Amino acid sequence: MSTMRGVLVRKFGGVEVLKVESNVPVSSVAGNQVLVKMKMSGVNPVDTYIRSGQYGKLPELPYIPGKDGAGLVHQIGKGVTKFKPGDRVFCNGSGTLAEYTTFDESHVFHLPDSYTMEEGASIGVPYFTAYRALFQKANIKSGERLLVHGASGAVGLAAVQMAKAYGLEVVGTAGTKEGLELVKRVGAHAVFNHRQSGYLDQLAAEPKFDIILEMLANVNLGADLPLMKARGRTVIVGSRGTVTINPRDLMITEACVMGVALLAAQDDEWDEIGNGVVKAIKEGWVKPVIDRVYPLDKVGDAHHDIIQSSGAKGNLVVQVQE
Amino acid sequence: MSTMRGVLVRKFGGVEVLKVESNVPVSSVAGNQVLVKMKMSGVNPVDTYIRSGQYGKLPELPYIPGKDGAGLVHQIGKGVTKFKPGDRVFCNGSGTLAEYTTFDESHVFHLPDSYTMEEGASIGVPYFTAYRALFQKANIKSGERLLVHGASGAVGLAAVQMAKAYGLEVVGTAGTKEGLELVKRVGAHAVFNHRQSGYLDQLAAEPKFDIILEMLANVNLGADLPLMKARGRTVIVGSRGTVTINPRDLMITEACVMGVALLAAQDDEWDEIGNGVVKAIKEGWVKPVIDRVYPLDKVGDAHHDIIQSSGAKGNLVVQVQE
Repeated sequence: MSTMRGVLVRKFGGVEVLKVESNVPVSSVAGNQVLVKMKMSGVNPVDTYIRSGQYGKLPELPYIPGKDGAGLVHQIGKGVTKFKPGDRVFCNGSGTLAEYTTFDESHVFHLPDSYTMEEGASIGVPYFTAYRALFQKANIKSGERLLVHGASGAVGLAAVQMAKAYGLEVVGTAGTKEGLELVKRVGAHAVFNHRQSGYLDQLAAEPKFDIILEMLANVNLGADLPLMKARGRTVIVGSRGTVTINPRDLMITEACVMGVALLAAQDDEWDEIGNGVVKAIKEGWVKPVIDRVYPLDKVGDAHHDIIQSSGAKGNLVVQVQE
Repeated sequence: MSTMRGVLVRKFGGVEVLKVESNVPVSSVAGNQVLVKMKMSGVNPVDTYIRSGQYGKLPELPYIPGKDGAGLVHQIGKGVTKFKPGDRVFCNGSGTLAEYTTFDESHVFHLPDSYTMEEGASIGVPYFTAYRALFQKANIKSGERLLVHGASGAVGLAAVQMAKAYGLEVVGTAGTKEGLELVKRVGAHAVFNHRQSGYLDQLAAEPKFDIILEMLANVNLGADLPLMKARGRTVIVGSRGTVTINPRDLMITEACVMGVALLAAQDDEWDEIGNGVVKAIKEGWVKPVIDRVYPLDKVGDAHHDIIQSSGAKGNLVVQVQE
């Protein structure tokens, strides 16, 4: 086994640069690495930012896209102790849109039998990002009020579940009836339709928030700032352009706006996130919501839909192989 | 002594609402309070925001403006232990633009003989704000790089002195030759003229900053964000309008933008600030720069100049009485 089927990007660009090729080289497995036979690959907005070349840290070309995945351990390096071939795992790294992907052991996690491969491929970026945003950046505390602005996407749903499990009061927004129902179903105490005119006035009439998780800062940030309590924290998870804000909205409250990027986690932080999410899986409240599964040769549609489709309702997943 | 000469504001508005009256009632002195015979009153931008009614926390009308002051202890409450009548003091509270002002003991500090009354009236807001911004918000560490964007005003100069004394590498901006010389003289390692076209390119070519202290966020914030290192912190001290930013500039670096307001300090934080500044005075690096002293009946000019005059170069002070 030296070549495999996989998606290769040879130049940055639109969805058309996502080409399925059949002679992609399989990478070797070093001492502390795990080679995973990939079943499902989770699609996240960051995948599209990288593919289009509009991301701070870009891979060398050509590269195999896909950060999240789930599959079976195929081969292990000599230093690997936690896994054996055949183990069901989920993983986060790069190159999950191919039949085999190599990860450092610290980026592979056991996937309980109670989770499908689709669900396993929907844990990495969404739950790890939510964990980093809520615990490592916003420093959430039980009893605080959280607004998840854009809660029906994968990170949003993960954040609602996580904050609810941790004892926060969670308000979520979504853009469709289905999205709103979903956000409520996974645990939000209240929901607002961010496509309905006047919803910002409704939010402003609510008690203010300790934390805001913002999925589309270029649209919402200006409106978020006055919604924060004294010493409030807004964490930016996503943004696709510029936005006008009034800095004075941060001054009297001494509130704070910060960005989050899972890739920026240092090793010890990464281990904490992994441990936290694995613990949460055991506690039983990690419940990825699968919106749609695409065949490998429709990966371009998945990349299109994650950004363009109106009304997120969970995770998009690409089936890599049977 | 039941009435005094002082400035009274009977309605919020322009500088014309600052009226000198001669029958202003002197407030009484409770157990832990100190009545100060005011010599000099420091003028800060926040005084103009309050006077014009454009501030988050407004006093009841009528009110006596002025937060910073210096003078002699005139009378003390029964619970006061740290002061006796005749002590030279500086103070921060409200109502320093009158012959007598009452403060809680925690807001009065001994003024060494080596400081003039003008200098004493220039310590409170500038140094306390710089301390809160740098230590309690940005959590500065020796060896870090700081940009003070707008360094020739009173807070900026205080921040340059403070950061330099604490072992940071300090870059400052100012808008005039005199301002730049002043910023350099009080300790900045490098200075840039923020009125010179291309200065942002020059700043961008410098090593990036751990901390940015921003005095005019409505003008500069969008340009500040890309100047921050990973995990950088921008602290907003002043802003007079809206600004366009690119939230993505906060994401890859996981940088943070926060507001600071001295009024928001809690009691224990206030005490820490006071102790820190008093310690700094003993260490000898608190050196307020006096730009201009106005007579009491020209207080309107001082309020005008602090906002409108081009090219800050230190503190504006009003002489309350001989």
